[in-house]
Amino acid sequence: MKSQVVSFLIKCPDQKGLVAKITSFFHEKGFNILSSQQYVNAIEDTYFMRVRLNADGTNISKEVLENEFLELATPLNIDWSVNYGDKKQNVAIMVSHTSHNLYDLLERSKEGRLDCNVIMIISNHNKLRYVADMFNIPFYHLPITKETKLEQEAQVKKIVDCNEIDLIVMARYMQILSADFINYYPEKIINIHHSFLPAFQGANPYKKAYERGVKLIGATAHYATVDLDEGPIIEQDVKPVTHESTPTTLKRIGADIEQLVLARAVKCHLNHQIIVSGNRAIVFPEAGE
Amino acid sequence: MKSQVVSFLIKCPDQKGLVAKITSFFHEKGFNILSSQQYVNAIEDTYFMRVRLNADGTNISKEVLENEFLELATPLNIDWSVNYGDKKQNVAIMVSHTSHNLYDLLERSKEGRLDCNVIMIISNHNKLRYVADMFNIPFYHLPITKETKLEQEAQVKKIVDCNEIDLIVMARYMQILSADFINYYPEKIINIHHSFLPAFQGANPYKKAYERGVKLIGATAHYATVDLDEGPIIEQDVKPVTHESTPTTLKRIGADIEQLVLARAVKCHLNHQIIVSGNRAIVFPEAGE
Amino acid sequence: MKSQVVSFLIKCPDQKGLVAKITSFFHEKGFNILSSQQYVNAIEDTYFMRVRLNADGTNISKEVLENEFLELATPLNIDWSVNYGDKKQNVAIMVSHTSHNLYDLLERSKEGRLDCNVIMIISNHNKLRYVADMFNIPFYHLPITKETKLEQEAQVKKIVDCNEIDLIVMARYMQILSADFINYYPEKIINIHHSFLPAFQGANPYKKAYERGVKLIGATAHYATVDLDEGPIIEQDVKPVTHESTPTTLKRIGADIEQLVLARAVKCHLNHQIIVSGNRAIVFPEAGE
Amino acid sequence: MKSQVVSFLIKCPDQKGLVAKITSFFHEKGFNILSSQQYVNAIEDTYFMRVRLNADGTNISKEVLENEFLELATPLNIDWSVNYGDKKQNVAIMVSHTSHNLYDLLERSKEGRLDCNVIMIISNHNKLRYVADMFNIPFYHLPITKETKLEQEAQVKKIVDCNEIDLIVMARYMQILSADFINYYPEKIINIHHSFLPAFQGANPYKKAYERGVKLIGATAHYATVDLDEGPIIEQDVKPVTHESTPTTLKRIGADIEQLVLARAVKCHLNHQIIVSGNRAIVFPEAGE
Repeated sequence: MKSQVVSFLIKCPDQKGLVAKITSFFHEKGFNILSSQQYVNAIEDTYFMRVRLNADGTNISKEVLENEFLELATPLNIDWSVNYGDKKQNVAIMVSHTSHNLYDLLERSKEGRLDCNVIMIISNHNKLRYVADMFNIPFYHLPITKETKLEQEAQVKKIVDCNEIDLIVMARYMQILSADFINYYPEKIINIHHSFLPAFQGANPYKKAYERGVKLIGATAHYATVDLDEGPIIEQDVKPVTHESTPTTLKRIGADIEQLVLARAVKCHLNHQIIVSGNRAIVFPEAGE
Repeated sequence: MKSQVVSFLIKCPDQKGLVAKITSFFHEKGFNILSSQQYVNAIEDTYFMRVRLNADGTNISKEVLENEFLELATPLNIDWSVNYGDKKQNVAIMVSHTSHNLYDLLERSKEGRLDCNVIMIISNHNKLRYVADMFNIPFYHLPITKETKLEQEAQVKKIVDCNEIDLIVMARYMQILSADFINYYPEKIINIHHSFLPAFQGANPYKKAYERGVKLIGATAHYATVDLDEGPIIEQDVKPVTHESTPTTLKRIGADIEQLVLARAVKCHLNHQIIVSGNRAIVFPEAGE
Repeated sequence: MKSQVVSFLIKCPDQKGLVAKITSFFHEKGFNILSSQQYVNAIEDTYFMRVRLNADGTNISKEVLENEFLELATPLNIDWSVNYGDKKQNVAIMVSHTSHNLYDLLERSKEGRLDCNVIMIISNHNKLRYVADMFNIPFYHLPITKETKLEQEAQVKKIVDCNEIDLIVMARYMQILSADFINYYPEKIINIHHSFLPAFQGANPYKKAYERGVKLIGATAHYATVDLDEGPIIEQDVKPVTHESTPTTLKRIGADIEQLVLARAVKCHLNHQIIVSGNRAIVFPEAGE
Repeated sequence: MKSQVVSFLIKCPDQKGLVAKITSFFHEKGFNILSSQQYVNAIEDTYFMRVRLNADGTNISKEVLENEFLELATPLNIDWSVNYGDKKQNVAIMVSHTSHNLYDLLERSKEGRLDCNVIMIISNHNKLRYVADMFNIPFYHLPITKETKLEQEAQVKKIVDCNEIDLIVMARYMQILSADFINYYPEKIINIHHSFLPAFQGANPYKKAYERGVKLIGATAHYATVDLDEGPIIEQDVKPVTHESTPTTLKRIGADIEQLVLARAVKCHLNHQIIVSGNRAIVFPEAGE
């Protein structure tokens, strides 16, 4: 195993001795535990863990590691996943008309602030092709109408699957994806919504925020689920505003929040910090990474 | 006129020359304009103004000032109010079981951080009488049931009116006031709701926040209107939380936000910084006050 | 062992297998690990851990537990402390003229939001005695002059030591404590400074903040050390301000920040969340507590 | 006068009747006052004003307007400037190795989120030429050594002056400009410093922040003056960090703050919201713009 950092994400019923058993397992296999983070949900009696390992001192194969961990995991009812950090993840970005999130993700990816390969940009409009061109990323213009919705989604699916995409980021893609599409990529689609959910679900949140006279506006990044704007929340932030703000200025102020919130959420996902449990996202903080 | 600072709050259709006309009026009467704040709502073509005057250089009487201002105001369709700052406002606080907002308001009032006299505390429970006693404030225990609701509200009205109360603060009073009661005190009742409205209206916002897995919780101070939790928002704030939070810890974290948000809203009201317009509250910031 | 939650704070050179060894130890003794938090400082190769245990399933005595843990700890070079959570900590508050932090700490303690007994208030002035009286806390007025400084500190030491004080909180005590006094209570004195340190160390931070024209002001809670305002920082916060602010309004705005920052720092200390390492404070977040 | 919005920035000794006189002047010339913002510094007895006018109803020439305003201004001792909003401002960006601020400013300018023309990028290194190329902006590589400093600055001056640059933005330009250079462009150079000044002036603020163990890090945008990192502060912001952060992670977290803080400061400058007074920057908020 040549990779630097191996990450395990673990979820199971809470029970005595879990930390000891799991950390002893890795210790015995020769790993150095870089960080081990736990969370016990006492309401649901569930245990969550994120372990980051340095594989330098061990020459166990991935296969053996996984088989032996499975032996530990099965009697403890552990749901788990492992990532070997030896392959950059492939990302597809979906957009419509709004450019700020797109620029930001492309810049972060290009400059190494996001550890991924942006493989493609998919849009129902042609407007943002020039941004893709600036960053030399393939741009797929796949228009959509009520009538062609399923067909267009089939096209999206096809190019996504052909390119081994690990994560789809909806960076202000202003179409509602079908339940079929969403269910085909569980916990693989991150959406940015331009309000502090659950406030102002659906269309035109900045207009609604103006009308309600709120004193702060926000943005929410969440996993897309079949219930619109109701998926597990990964990251949220807000900024104070005043009565002076119009829907137009709220939109402009909000753009900066959307940008940061989406970038942070994508980073947490790429960095294997998230375990979804029901409709809640357990987001472990970075451990000095 | 002996008072130090006279404040005018003004609202009218937008039209050319308003600032000039209004400020010239005060200048000619011999006032020194300490601050003059404007806000134009271009969507509704409405003009809002807050003017603070130093009355030292003038000996115009209140009556004359108001009559002459009326002459200016009538043709311009100005809605206005004036405050002479020569009388501390009287406040009634309504509470149920929760003490943190009550302590905070009493302390700020006692120490001069809120410029008002807390005249009484009204509660549907007896639990917080000891806090009233610590601060030597009369405490009225007026229990309530479904059956006695109107009767109890009549009692509240009576003691409020007998004591020339200028402002009622619902500092976690866990009863829904009747429309009659609320309409009797328009823009005179401030409520604190323990969520960043419009998210989590109604009961148990912290439980709902836990279940929705939000990454920030908040509080909102607003004028009470007949639509529950839908009155004009005066002040809001939030604090980040994590998946670790339970409904219990959210409640504890939220208490600090509630406290500050309510205190700031009450301060803005007492300081004549607010003009309500439809369902929005225009809250002028302090002008170096 | 009847107590509910036993907390261990651990610091040692980083080395392979630490999590496994330590958690296995507690597991074998019959404890349920409620939470185990780690932090590895890779720059100094140091490992820090906070473990919270539920002692319900074990009847090991404190003495045996400590002796056996010592056997584990010694070869691993572990610095450690344990708290059994079976005794409320005793707190002394030192103040001068400013009341807001004092009220806040007393209210939180009285209402159970801070888990401690405030045993006494010590002041170099008599001004705040009435606050102590409101909360029925003994108040010691110990005036100080340049000439009587050592003598006064000796008096403070005496009453502090007679009352088995666990923590001294300087809640805007405007005297510089001597090195002797501070060294006598290592990591037992928390001070609030009214700026975001290291900005504006020393006297009159709000005046300096006005003159420098900063756009945010803050407060810092830290352990007192012999270098004034340079001890390990526990908690900091800021709030935006504008050019409108005067030293007076900064003071008023700052009071709210000071209050929250000090309360949070004291809570972290009482809750055994802090390990000091050199001049840095490792402050573990609450683990759903 | 064809332009949409004319802005006046005004500073003078405080005196009775200023608002009335100034707003009456503009009213009589046929302007519609879009917004009028005041600030009285009572400590220095100075009055500041920002007035935005709609020139649609008037056909006064710039020359006449300025001459007549001068007649009003001279006896009142008014320092003033006017901007007609009829010409985009020209901006030069100076950088060294760090790309995030550069990308951000270029994107905002290209997408109309910053109202300016970025005319050139000047760098003492060649590293970021590719970013300039992506956005089609001329890039001047002007290396610098101790020996060639004055010469290089002369070159910078030459190309800046040839291109009628209105504003120089130091977007992490890691050289100390000479006093001569700085004094040649008073209030025309905005610098971003990667700490919440006055904390951590000078080199390596993130390393210093780590060592001091602060619980928040920040960034400050200010006008460059001859005293390093001591010029008038335009904008500041911070973000909470924890003990987990290393100098490397602080740098990464800080990048997001730097980006927003610099962009906001540049926007305020381009939008004529700032009056410098001594070492303080009066930054009027946007008035629904």
